[in-house]
Amino acid sequence: LTEKNIFSEFAARISSIVGSEDIISSGEKLAEYSVDMADFRGKIMLVARPENGREVSELVKLANELRVPLIARGGGSSVTGAVVGDDAIVVDLTRMNRILKIDRVNWYAHVEAGVILDQLNQELDKAGLYFPPDPASSFLCTVGGAVAEGSGGMRCVKFGTFKDWVLALKVVLPNGNIVKIGEALPKNRAGYDLVHLFIGSEGTLGIITEAWLKIIPSPTEKPRRMFVLLDSWENAGKAILTLRQSRVLPSIMEFVDRESLELVNQKMEMTLPVDEAVLLLDVDEKDITVTEKILQESQARKILVARDDDEAQQFYNARAGVYLAIRGTGKDVMVEDVVVPIDMLMDYLQFVKKLGRRMKVEIIVGGHIGDGNVHPVILYDKQNRNSQKAALQAFEEICRYAIKMGGTVTGEHGVGTQKVKFLREQILAHNGSDVLQLMKELKRLFDPKGIMNPGKYVEAC
Amino acid sequence: LTEKNIFSEFAARISSIVGSEDIISSGEKLAEYSVDMADFRGKIMLVARPENGREVSELVKLANELRVPLIARGGGSSVTGAVVGDDAIVVDLTRMNRILKIDRVNWYAHVEAGVILDQLNQELDKAGLYFPPDPASSFLCTVGGAVAEGSGGMRCVKFGTFKDWVLALKVVLPNGNIVKIGEALPKNRAGYDLVHLFIGSEGTLGIITEAWLKIIPSPTEKPRRMFVLLDSWENAGKAILTLRQSRVLPSIMEFVDRESLELVNQKMEMTLPVDEAVLLLDVDEKDITVTEKILQESQARKILVARDDDEAQQFYNARAGVYLAIRGTGKDVMVEDVVVPIDMLMDYLQFVKKLGRRMKVEIIVGGHIGDGNVHPVILYDKQNRNSQKAALQAFEEICRYAIKMGGTVTGEHGVGTQKVKFLREQILAHNGSDVLQLMKELKRLFDPKGIMNPGKYVEAC
Repeated sequence: LTEKNIFSEFAARISSIVGSEDIISSGEKLAEYSVDMADFRGKIMLVARPENGREVSELVKLANELRVPLIARGGGSSVTGAVVGDDAIVVDLTRMNRILKIDRVNWYAHVEAGVILDQLNQELDKAGLYFPPDPASSFLCTVGGAVAEGSGGMRCVKFGTFKDWVLALKVVLPNGNIVKIGEALPKNRAGYDLVHLFIGSEGTLGIITEAWLKIIPSPTEKPRRMFVLLDSWENAGKAILTLRQSRVLPSIMEFVDRESLELVNQKMEMTLPVDEAVLLLDVDEKDITVTEKILQESQARKILVARDDDEAQQFYNARAGVYLAIRGTGKDVMVEDVVVPIDMLMDYLQFVKKLGRRMKVEIIVGGHIGDGNVHPVILYDKQNRNSQKAALQAFEEICRYAIKMGGTVTGEHGVGTQKVKFLREQILAHNGSDVLQLMKELKRLFDPKGIMNPGKYVEAC
Repeated sequence: LTEKNIFSEFAARISSIVGSEDIISSGEKLAEYSVDMADFRGKIMLVARPENGREVSELVKLANELRVPLIARGGGSSVTGAVVGDDAIVVDLTRMNRILKIDRVNWYAHVEAGVILDQLNQELDKAGLYFPPDPASSFLCTVGGAVAEGSGGMRCVKFGTFKDWVLALKVVLPNGNIVKIGEALPKNRAGYDLVHLFIGSEGTLGIITEAWLKIIPSPTEKPRRMFVLLDSWENAGKAILTLRQSRVLPSIMEFVDRESLELVNQKMEMTLPVDEAVLLLDVDEKDITVTEKILQESQARKILVARDDDEAQQFYNARAGVYLAIRGTGKDVMVEDVVVPIDMLMDYLQFVKKLGRRMKVEIIVGGHIGDGNVHPVILYDKQNRNSQKAALQAFEEICRYAIKMGGTVTGEHGVGTQKVKFLREQILAHNGSDVLQLMKELKRLFDPKGIMNPGKYVEAC
């Protein structure tokens, strides 16, 4: 069969699996699936919107038989090209959005892959529980997508990423069989840890249809939210280093630069005070005094402690809204996601600043400074070849700087198509060629026909 | 070459890798390596005690060439047969016991595999930091062994097991090549998660030579330690259930039965008060009042809150000393490690109690009740065939009960040779035959010649 005929056959036979109203094969709706949140694009042939695991299983069996590439998609909030691709079928899991169980004794939530993260936390809140990892896209991103990406967020400085919060998964393997991996138990040592292989697998090993997530009681005392202005990145860095060496363990430890804050003020009609460097901190009441002392010693110009929930939310929005505010400028963006050791943070930020000047590109910086995971956003103009070239070079230099400093080219966004080259460089530099080889063989072991999100991530390295 | 000749050749060539004083080939010293902490035995041919990763690498290359089985061993505190085997070479890693770095900014400890866990925590304590997972054998067990076993402990009810605390590993692959997997960073999404494949791999995928472990600041306020006596297991269970549903999050939540406590009092010359069920809890000061209320409502007969560090240590020893006190009786033991959902704990404990009566075997119960991970210890007499038969049947019934209730046959001790049959039953019942198949293929992918701790764990299923 030619490629075109294979898709025709797939399209013909899919109608016995999902209803015609849940197949999208043309028009604007199809176009929506051909792009992700950072404008990575692909040529999607067809979208299927299954409503349960059985339908996903049958879809995968059909794709396996015809060797048709499948891309699983949740909220589409990837920023690395992980949910788009050429000549592929998208399996949209957003109809599978049921919260199946909130277990108040065993502290887990059992959900379908299409549940939106904020919806889950709204339900959990009613039971005095919550799920800590909080990607900036939590209003949109689905549990399945966030597991597949191994997502992070602001609270990860204290609570870790999705890697630390998934107990078990139900997945459809590339052969179409439905299996459960892991156990919904606090401890389980039965067999090799396949759950963590799937966390951060970017849809390349199978399709996640259900998850059992760890949850914990909401804190009895809310931490206090601080909004701290500093006149230089050096002083911000000094504050972070001293905080890390003290016993203070903030549950949020974020950074935004002047340009981010000005954009947010403008786009979100806020009037927050502005300085060169702003830290957003969530600190337990008992640690407020020592934190203020450290900040003062780091020459903080202004230390605001939120007086009420509204103000706390406003401070939060100043950080959470940066990416959307940047997108609101209409400029094209390249989003970085490197992590460097925290004691090298300030060198790294200075490097980014100088790089922007040297390459004559605008780079806005903000992110999870307490993790060493800051997201420089490179602004450029796709239509202008020089601008694109400069942006790409800046992007590459930032990745290589991180690799050289013992950092990683991705802390939470993943690889997709965006960072294939640098993933390879990093693994060869830090881990060894055996490791890359083992990872490639792992992919082939799970997906011998290469139908799961092919041509990306490790396989493409 | 015959098998005997292969070992002769291995023995002859090994002397160019490690010094003769670091080769043990006969006598009492060799016998010490032929048994683990639960009396699993094997016929060890030779022990090599390398002093660095290069020597481990050369040993593995030699074993790979000659297809000689290797068993990595740390403190030897396995209770499942994971560190013994027949016609195998033991690689003893205890000489590799250097703490390479304690990073106070990035919060990790970089250590060699042979570092004893308590030694690490003693060093960390000087810097106001600690590593939470605390297997009962922490005075003896090594970091490498605990990573390979995915060990747990008392503090895991709040902090999780080794699965949650390893950032990166240096391992010698079965081909003898040294690679690093993971990154010593709070977040890293570069490639499939091989670190978690090695955590709990029981020495079957390669030999761990170094680890980068997450560490955190010691709490500024020590939790209060409570020792609670109840007149029945039902009431203990009621207390646990109510605590889980409240917002109290104890950092220790342990259980011992009357028999355990009497043994500990006797063997350790203590005079702790005794009752049918005893709970050991570490509770933050702010939660003491609500905890006491819940315990009173569960008919607790006595609630002791430790008045000083000495008393707190005594309460702790009452739980930590149970296994050694049992071993002090000279009786043979089978140690269980199942986990059940916490709301089924009391049914499970009643089942164990009745089972003991029905089978006429003595079963002592204690363990991590806050995790649903209780360790029944079956006492029997190896020399008496009927006793052995009854003990084995009790062991099997407990495993099958756990599988039926949605539990796991191992929470933290692993599989080794002890639970091969039940691991298979559990995976087939809960996960599916595809999962077992994938796990077996994973083993072959990493270790195609089958030289790493062969004939155990998943491979043997």
